[in-house]
Amino acid sequence: MPVPHPAPLSGASYSAVELSPAGDVVLMLDQRRLPHEELYVELRDAAAVAEAIRAMVVRGAPAIGIAAAYGLAVEARRGGDLNAAGALLARARPTAVNLKWAVDRMLSFVPASPEELAEHARTLHREDVAACRAMGRIGAALLPERGTVLTHCNAGALATGGYGTALGVIRAARELGKDIRVLSCETRPYLQGARLTCWELDRDGVPVELITDGMAAHFFGRGEIDAVIVGADRVALNGDVANKIGTYGHACVARMHERPFYVAAPRSTLDPNTPTGAAIVIEERSSDEVVRIGEQVIAPANVRARHPGFDVTPARLVSRLITELGDVPGERARDLM
Amino acid sequence: MPVPHPAPLSGASYSAVELSPAGDVVLMLDQRRLPHEELYVELRDAAAVAEAIRAMVVRGAPAIGIAAAYGLAVEARRGGDLNAAGALLARARPTAVNLKWAVDRMLSFVPASPEELAEHARTLHREDVAACRAMGRIGAALLPERGTVLTHCNAGALATGGYGTALGVIRAARELGKDIRVLSCETRPYLQGARLTCWELDRDGVPVELITDGMAAHFFGRGEIDAVIVGADRVALNGDVANKIGTYGHACVARMHERPFYVAAPRSTLDPNTPTGAAIVIEERSSDEVVRIGEQVIAPANVRARHPGFDVTPARLVSRLITELGDVPGERARDLM
Repeated sequence: MPVPHPAPLSGASYSAVELSPAGDVVLMLDQRRLPHEELYVELRDAAAVAEAIRAMVVRGAPAIGIAAAYGLAVEARRGGDLNAAGALLARARPTAVNLKWAVDRMLSFVPASPEELAEHARTLHREDVAACRAMGRIGAALLPERGTVLTHCNAGALATGGYGTALGVIRAARELGKDIRVLSCETRPYLQGARLTCWELDRDGVPVELITDGMAAHFFGRGEIDAVIVGADRVALNGDVANKIGTYGHACVARMHERPFYVAAPRSTLDPNTPTGAAIVIEERSSDEVVRIGEQVIAPANVRARHPGFDVTPARLVSRLITELGDVPGERARDLM
Repeated sequence: MPVPHPAPLSGASYSAVELSPAGDVVLMLDQRRLPHEELYVELRDAAAVAEAIRAMVVRGAPAIGIAAAYGLAVEARRGGDLNAAGALLARARPTAVNLKWAVDRMLSFVPASPEELAEHARTLHREDVAACRAMGRIGAALLPERGTVLTHCNAGALATGGYGTALGVIRAARELGKDIRVLSCETRPYLQGARLTCWELDRDGVPVELITDGMAAHFFGRGEIDAVIVGADRVALNGDVANKIGTYGHACVARMHERPFYVAAPRSTLDPNTPTGAAIVIEERSSDEVVRIGEQVIAPANVRARHPGFDVTPARLVSRLITELGDVPGERARDLM
C-alpha cells in the first residue's frame, strides 16, 4: 500500500496533500486515478500546484486551500514571486472560498525564512485536521444511535487535511459507537461519491453502499434515510450553501420527507463577504466532462451538455450548519462568522 | 441511414419494434447500442423476444407490450405453444403492466390463422401510435407557447410504437408552433436520457440539452424549467405512478418550485388492479449495472451498489395525467380507468 513520504500529518494512511520535510515538494494524491490506483504526484512550484488544482488532481474546498498554502511554501523556497504565485493559486478554481482564504493567510504572514513559511503552511494544515475533528464531535451528537446517512460528493479525508468534514462527522459518530451506515451518491458527472467517498469509507471500514444521484428520493420515500450530511464550498453570510452540483436536490427532497439536512464546513469556508448565495460564482465546466465517462461517450455527437459545477442550497433548507465552533440553524450562519 | 424492413408502421425513419410482412420475424432496434450504432436484430420466436425484453434490447412500457404481441405472432406462425410463450413474455420484466396487458389481449383473441393473429398484433401497434398522437394533442395544450421542459429517461418513439408519450407531447407542441426546448436528464444508471432521448430528439430536430440527474434542481432554482413531462411504467388505481428510477425526485423538486409535473401514458399503462403504488413490484437490478459504465468501473471492488429500477411518485405530485382519452389530476386517475 503506497504511503506518501512524509507520513500524513493527519495520522491516516493516505492524504490528499502533504509538504516534504525539506519544504521543496508538494506531494499530492492524484484523485483522478482513484479508486483504481493510489499514486502521489510531486509538484515543485506554485504554477504546478495551481494547474493540479485546476485539473482536479486535488479537490475539496479545505484540501485545495492547504494545497495552495503548500504551493506558496515551495515557491518561497525556490525564491519565486509570492504575490504573483498567490494570484495564480487563488484563481485556479472560482467557487470555493478556501483558496483565497489560504492565500491571504499565507501572504499576510511575514516569515524570517522559507522554512518559517513552510511551518506556517503546516500549521494551517494541522488546524484543518483539528477543525475536522472538532466538527466531528459536534456533528456526531446530531446523528441517531443507529441509522443511515446520505452523503453527496466527497467531503472526507480526501477533501480536507484529513478526517473530513461530512465524513468526519460520520467517523466521529462511529468512534462513539453509533451504528451509522452510509449511502453514497455517485455524484455525476465527476463521480466523486463513487470513486472517492466509497474508496475512503471502504478503506476505513465504514459500511457504505453506492447509489446513483437519482435514487436518493426513492430511499427517502421508503424511510431508509435518517439524515443527509454534506460539505460545502462556500457558505454565504445569510447561510446559503454552495456545494457540489446535486446537493440542492437532496436538500429539497430531505425537506419534503422531513429529514434533517446537515452541512459540515470549517469556518474557513464561511464567507462573510458573500451576502447571499446569489453572489456566488458558479463554476461552469465543460460539456465534455458530462458527455464522456472515461473512454465512453454517452450522447450523440451533436448534443451538448450543461455543466454547472455547483449549486446553491438556500439557508432555510439547512437544518444545522456544523463548524469547529459549534452548530446553528442554516439561517443563523452569521453567528459563526 | 439504416431503415428497418418493413418501413416503420408509425411513419418515422426508425422504430423500436416491427413485424416482418410474412409475420415470421420480429425486427428490433438494439437500443443498447444507441447512440453509436443503429442496428436491427431479427428474432424468430417468443423465447428470443422475451430474452431481448429482459436484456433491454427494447425497453419502454408500450414498446415492450408491442414486442410481446409480435413475439406471440411469430410463435403462432411456427406452431409454438402460445400459452407457454405468453407466460414467458409476461414475466420478462416485472414493473410495466403493458407486458401482461398485451399478452392477455393477444391470447384472448381467437384467430382463424397465424396471419390473423399477426394482423391483431399490428392493430395493437397501430393503436399505440394513435394513442401517442392523441396524447400529444391533449398534452400539447398544457405546455406554454415558449419554454423549457425537463424529461427523464426515454418516453419517446423508442419507448412506444412510435411518436412517444412524453416526447410525443413535446413533438405535438412543436407541430403546433410552440417554441419548446428540452432538458434531458441522462438517467443513470442506464443512461436512457443521454443515449436515447438525446438521440431521437436530435434526429428529429427538437432542441435538446443534456444534464445529469442531479442538475435538475439547480435549473429549477434558476427558473429555467417550465414543466416536467415523463412517461410511466404503471399507474395505480389511486394515481400513483411507477416510472424509471429518478422520476420521484424530479416530482418532489418540481412541487417545491411550483412547476407542473405531467405524466403521459396510454391507458394500457393504467392498472385498475393495482390499488396504490405500494402494491407495485419494483424491479431490483444488479449492482454491476451501476458500478460499470461501459468498460469503466467507477467504484472500489468491495463496494456494492443498490439498484431499484423504478420509483413511485405519489398521485398528489402529478399535476396532470395525460392519456389518449383526456387528462386529469393524478389523484383522479381512476376516472380514466
